Amino acid sequence: MSVSDAAECFALKEKFKVLWINVDGLHETGVIEKLGELFGIDPLTQEDILHTGQRPKVEDFERYLFLSLQMLDFNRETGEISQEQLSIVLGPGWLITFQEKPGDTFDALRQRIGSSNAKVRKHEADFLAYALVDSVVDHYFSILEEIENRIDMLDADLMATFSQETFNALNALKRELIMFRKAVWPLREIIGSVARDDFAVVGDLVEHYFRDVYDHVILVIDTVEVFREIVTSMHETWLAGVNNRMNEIMKFLTMIATIFMPLSFIAGVYGMNFK
Amino acid sequence: MSVSDAAECFALKEKFKVLWINVDGLHETGVIEKLGELFGIDPLTQEDILHTGQRPKVEDFERYLFLSLQMLDFNRETGEISQEQLSIVLGPGWLITFQEKPGDTFDALRQRIGSSNAKVRKHEADFLAYALVDSVVDHYFSILEEIENRIDMLDADLMATFSQETFNALNALKRELIMFRKAVWPLREIIGSVARDDFAVVGDLVEHYFRDVYDHVILVIDTVEVFREIVTSMHETWLAGVNNRMNEIMKFLTMIATIFMPLSFIAGVYGMNFK
Amino acid sequence: MSVSDAAECFALKEKFKVLWINVDGLHETGVIEKLGELFGIDPLTQEDILHTGQRPKVEDFERYLFLSLQMLDFNRETGEISQEQLSIVLGPGWLITFQEKPGDTFDALRQRIGSSNAKVRKHEADFLAYALVDSVVDHYFSILEEIENRIDMLDADLMATFSQETFNALNALKRELIMFRKAVWPLREIIGSVARDDFAVVGDLVEHYFRDVYDHVILVIDTVEVFREIVTSMHETWLAGVNNRMNEIMKFLTMIATIFMPLSFIAGVYGMNFK
Amino acid sequence: MSVSDAAECFALKEKFKVLWINVDGLHETGVIEKLGELFGIDPLTQEDILHTGQRPKVEDFERYLFLSLQMLDFNRETGEISQEQLSIVLGPGWLITFQEKPGDTFDALRQRIGSSNAKVRKHEADFLAYALVDSVVDHYFSILEEIENRIDMLDADLMATFSQETFNALNALKRELIMFRKAVWPLREIIGSVARDDFAVVGDLVEHYFRDVYDHVILVIDTVEVFREIVTSMHETWLAGVNNRMNEIMKFLTMIATIFMPLSFIAGVYGMNFK
Amino acid sequence: MSVSDAAECFALKEKFKVLWINVDGLHETGVIEKLGELFGIDPLTQEDILHTGQRPKVEDFERYLFLSLQMLDFNRETGEISQEQLSIVLGPGWLITFQEKPGDTFDALRQRIGSSNAKVRKHEADFLAYALVDSVVDHYFSILEEIENRIDMLDADLMATFSQETFNALNALKRELIMFRKAVWPLREIIGSVARDDFAVVGDLVEHYFRDVYDHVILVIDTVEVFREIVTSMHETWLAGVNNRMNEIMKFLTMIATIFMPLSFIAGVYGMNFK
Repeated sequence: MSVSDAAECFALKEKFKVLWINVDGLHETGVIEKLGELFGIDPLTQEDILHTGQRPKVEDFERYLFLSLQMLDFNRETGEISQEQLSIVLGPGWLITFQEKPGDTFDALRQRIGSSNAKVRKHEADFLAYALVDSVVDHYFSILEEIENRIDMLDADLMATFSQETFNALNALKRELIMFRKAVWPLREIIGSVARDDFAVVGDLVEHYFRDVYDHVILVIDTVEVFREIVTSMHETWLAGVNNRMNEIMKFLTMIATIFMPLSFIAGVYGMNFK
Repeated sequence: MSVSDAAECFALKEKFKVLWINVDGLHETGVIEKLGELFGIDPLTQEDILHTGQRPKVEDFERYLFLSLQMLDFNRETGEISQEQLSIVLGPGWLITFQEKPGDTFDALRQRIGSSNAKVRKHEADFLAYALVDSVVDHYFSILEEIENRIDMLDADLMATFSQETFNALNALKRELIMFRKAVWPLREIIGSVARDDFAVVGDLVEHYFRDVYDHVILVIDTVEVFREIVTSMHETWLAGVNNRMNEIMKFLTMIATIFMPLSFIAGVYGMNFK
Repeated sequence: MSVSDAAECFALKEKFKVLWINVDGLHETGVIEKLGELFGIDPLTQEDILHTGQRPKVEDFERYLFLSLQMLDFNRETGEISQEQLSIVLGPGWLITFQEKPGDTFDALRQRIGSSNAKVRKHEADFLAYALVDSVVDHYFSILEEIENRIDMLDADLMATFSQETFNALNALKRELIMFRKAVWPLREIIGSVARDDFAVVGDLVEHYFRDVYDHVILVIDTVEVFREIVTSMHETWLAGVNNRMNEIMKFLTMIATIFMPLSFIAGVYGMNFK
Repeated sequence: MSVSDAAECFALKEKFKVLWINVDGLHETGVIEKLGELFGIDPLTQEDILHTGQRPKVEDFERYLFLSLQMLDFNRETGEISQEQLSIVLGPGWLITFQEKPGDTFDALRQRIGSSNAKVRKHEADFLAYALVDSVVDHYFSILEEIENRIDMLDADLMATFSQETFNALNALKRELIMFRKAVWPLREIIGSVARDDFAVVGDLVEHYFRDVYDHVILVIDTVEVFREIVTSMHETWLAGVNNRMNEIMKFLTMIATIFMPLSFIAGVYGMNFK
Repeated sequence: MSVSDAAECFALKEKFKVLWINVDGLHETGVIEKLGELFGIDPLTQEDILHTGQRPKVEDFERYLFLSLQMLDFNRETGEISQEQLSIVLGPGWLITFQEKPGDTFDALRQRIGSSNAKVRKHEADFLAYALVDSVVDHYFSILEEIENRIDMLDADLMATFSQETFNALNALKRELIMFRKAVWPLREIIGSVARDDFAVVGDLVEHYFRDVYDHVILVIDTVEVFREIVTSMHETWLAGVNNRMNEIMKFLTMIATIFMPLSFIAGVYGMNFK
């Protein structure tokens, strides 16, 4: 684990109004404990940060807000979705984020912070939290696009052949969609709660922005559901195609048998040895 | 992008009581920004207008109401439903609509405005918003009719042949219905909210009219669901037909084999070379 | 369109306490407009009356209550359910009903009114509305009975043969059940609302009676759902039967081939021309 | 119809604090009318008592509470569930029950009342109503046990053979579960309402006991759902088994054909008459 | 039944602040009755403790809280989940637990109590109840892990062969998941209620801890659902594989027949006895 350039962070605080500490990797629990002491983070929250693979959640501790969500990534080669837990502890004027491994999801955001007239530099810590959550949810859309490409590709395959490989690929995709849904479904409630409820550390303006993220989350969930239905219907197409092809084969076999069995019989009759 | 005859719009304002600006195409963001400044439209709303493919939504900004919905169109040749986002910004006495491309959905409405004793000319901007939403929802019914025709056509096909083409057409229809449902489902909540909640810019009378649109939306959703169930049951008919036909073929093959195999054997016996 | 014996209606008013006007057929919109003027019926309600095929609804206009529902009829020969919209406008002391075509559903009710000591003659207009709705819902039960007979008949067919005709009949029945459900499902909410809410023109006693109709509606919906599940399970039986029969055929074919192929080979060996 | 030993009932009242009248059979409506007059039972309730096959319901008439539910019985030979409506009218200090035919479900309860130190003798009419409902719900569990036995039996059959009979038995069981669910599902709401709402004739203590019945009802419903899922999965096993067996047969047939067709051809070649 | 070292328990009370009595086995009802008298436990609660196989529940009796849940265990050899009811009676300063048989689930917890600076020793009885429920829910995760292993194993099998055994194993797993879900589903509501409602005997701090358990329960339920969907999709893979393999076999058979039937016929023709 390494506190990613804490010095830089404190420097940021001066030009910027927010202290952002990003922790990559969760092996050295000491760092988390120390941060917990410094910022008064509840032991239960510390446990939630350490136990990855959790269900996304939001919890209000009055002096800070704890948010955890799953960052997803689509591996184009294996077609698998990997997930990594992002924990956000948002206090008044400060924000600590915990990631499982050094990630690059926020590089775009960091660059935007770097540029002097960035929108994010004019706001408080709650806006930075919004920007982080927004970039995570935006990344979901890029995964959905990858999945859409994969669906189109499999659709073309489906028209060409009805191989077991296509079917297995369809089923693998279905499972990824099940995992995807499991990771984003709870966000409906969680982001909705941040946008609706009066959490002390989230200002009215940022609540307004979170309402926007909420709309995106709903769109992601709707799209995942639509993809699931499409994959199910492709699966049915596959089975129907196999059935249909079997039908064709049987028809051909029957035709061959219907022609040659009587002919062979007639030939056999003329091959008989009595007159 | 072109502000469609703004001059005409301002002229309308004089004889009419409402300023309606319709923007076709969203390429030149400058126009939207300028309109945003003039009418005090929130940057978030401007973003929602530009990012098409959004989930339909309603948002109350007190000095205006933002409504976005999906206009659908059925392409009779490909059998595909295309969608285009319509964003409506409704203020007191003015209304701005944004479409993705120059559309003709509202031509009928414009003509009605043209005629001097039109009902729409006697009302405020909120009534015009209602008339627009109503014409979008009414167009859904014409798509449903097209789909019903297609279902009837496929039903006739189904009785005649059990070809893979019929099955693929059924599956394509199923997907269009999935997309259709995705586009109209959120309207239940959205139009319901306009009809129920007290939005500052929507008068009581027009709320009453929106209740009517709400009923239509529910009818559209119910019909889509019924169509989905019918297509599913047609899909089952197809599979059952293929299975049944395979059964017939197998019966025939077995009959042929049962007759000629023993006969061939007997002929073979008599063809043997020993006595 | 013909106002069914308005004279008789007005006569009824004297002996009876209620004015009931029944309009059959909706072609001449003039009559509806005139009635609208006389009784102060909102233009939106008039539109709802004219546009048949609507979703059942209830709407309170304070000086009257508008109720629309679907009268269903089962055609024993085709096995199809036809539907006709019944619109009821209930005011204080008067009731206007609109039907699509001259129907005989209410003949039994009319006869009951004719007899001098009928329960319905001792009550107000709201009780008459209840009696009408009740007779419509009661008719649903007779359709359910017809459907049950049909299910029993198909069940017997299913045991005897696994023909494509039986399957098609099952699927047709399934569709009728889908349509049935679409027509009665909204009544749950609508009749519930009449029974629960305080509508000005519905007295407490009649609300009580509507609670009874509500129970019947729930029973109808439950039964339709049960029938749908039964038809689905019959559909599965059909498919299983076809699969099973195919299995039998294949077994027989394999047996024939297993016996005669080796025998034919042996006969062929002995038919060879070298020693 | 016979008032079951009214004398005994009145005698009971003396030693006991409750008047319980049990009516078996509903043919002679006169008895019901007379009881209705004596105890002030609403005509609507009387109708509900006479029309059996109703959906279970609870209705509060302030001076009495009307409860109707379905007593179920499992016929071990046919494997069918028969149902009988039990209507309970509970007033302050008295209780009238109506059954369709002379039943023996309450014999155990009657015996308990007979024994002098029975719990039920120390309580009011509402406790007796609880005891009756409890014994009906307890009987559901014994039916569930019978169904479980049947499932185990069919499971054993399934492993041994994949006959159409097993499939039909599975489907029959599925239907009985559908009927079962239809009969018990509404109890969730009804018993919940008795346990929760403040009905005048149900004391706080007995409400507490009804909470216990409510838990049992939920357990019954959960178990029925689980059984339905298990039967569905058995149905899939059957189909998979048939498919698999067909596969085996085809493999065997292909093997036979692959061996003997070339051999027969070779024999045929050597049987040719030219050199 | 044996009160597990009551002496030790009382001793614990001194160093510790809580009296914990654990009862293993429910055969001797006398012990339960005696404890009931001593601690004022309601007869209904005593019945709930004795009747195992209940639906998990929570009930507030003001002077104590009654909680029952199902401890599950996965038998690695048979692949079956066994369940055992755990009843917890939580009063102010004391806690009684009832298990069906001497279990070892709480051994880890007992050891933690043994160590002098354990967290659990610094808290009240409600914390001990939390620790018990937490350890039960934690054990669910270990079962989920076993199930995941089993799914992975079956997945490998599935790729290798499409035997009936694999299918039966899949179906057995499906049933275990159905039972699992039945046992944990009600916990959603129950643990939620403990975490949310103000029960007299549960302090604010412990409510907070229960909120954590609630999150775990939701994660367990979500995971069970995901596993069910995965098993369903594996089941479809199996069927598709069987269908596909049948297709291959048929293709081969048809090829053989197409080659050798005409050849045999030609050989037969040359074997004819006329010139």
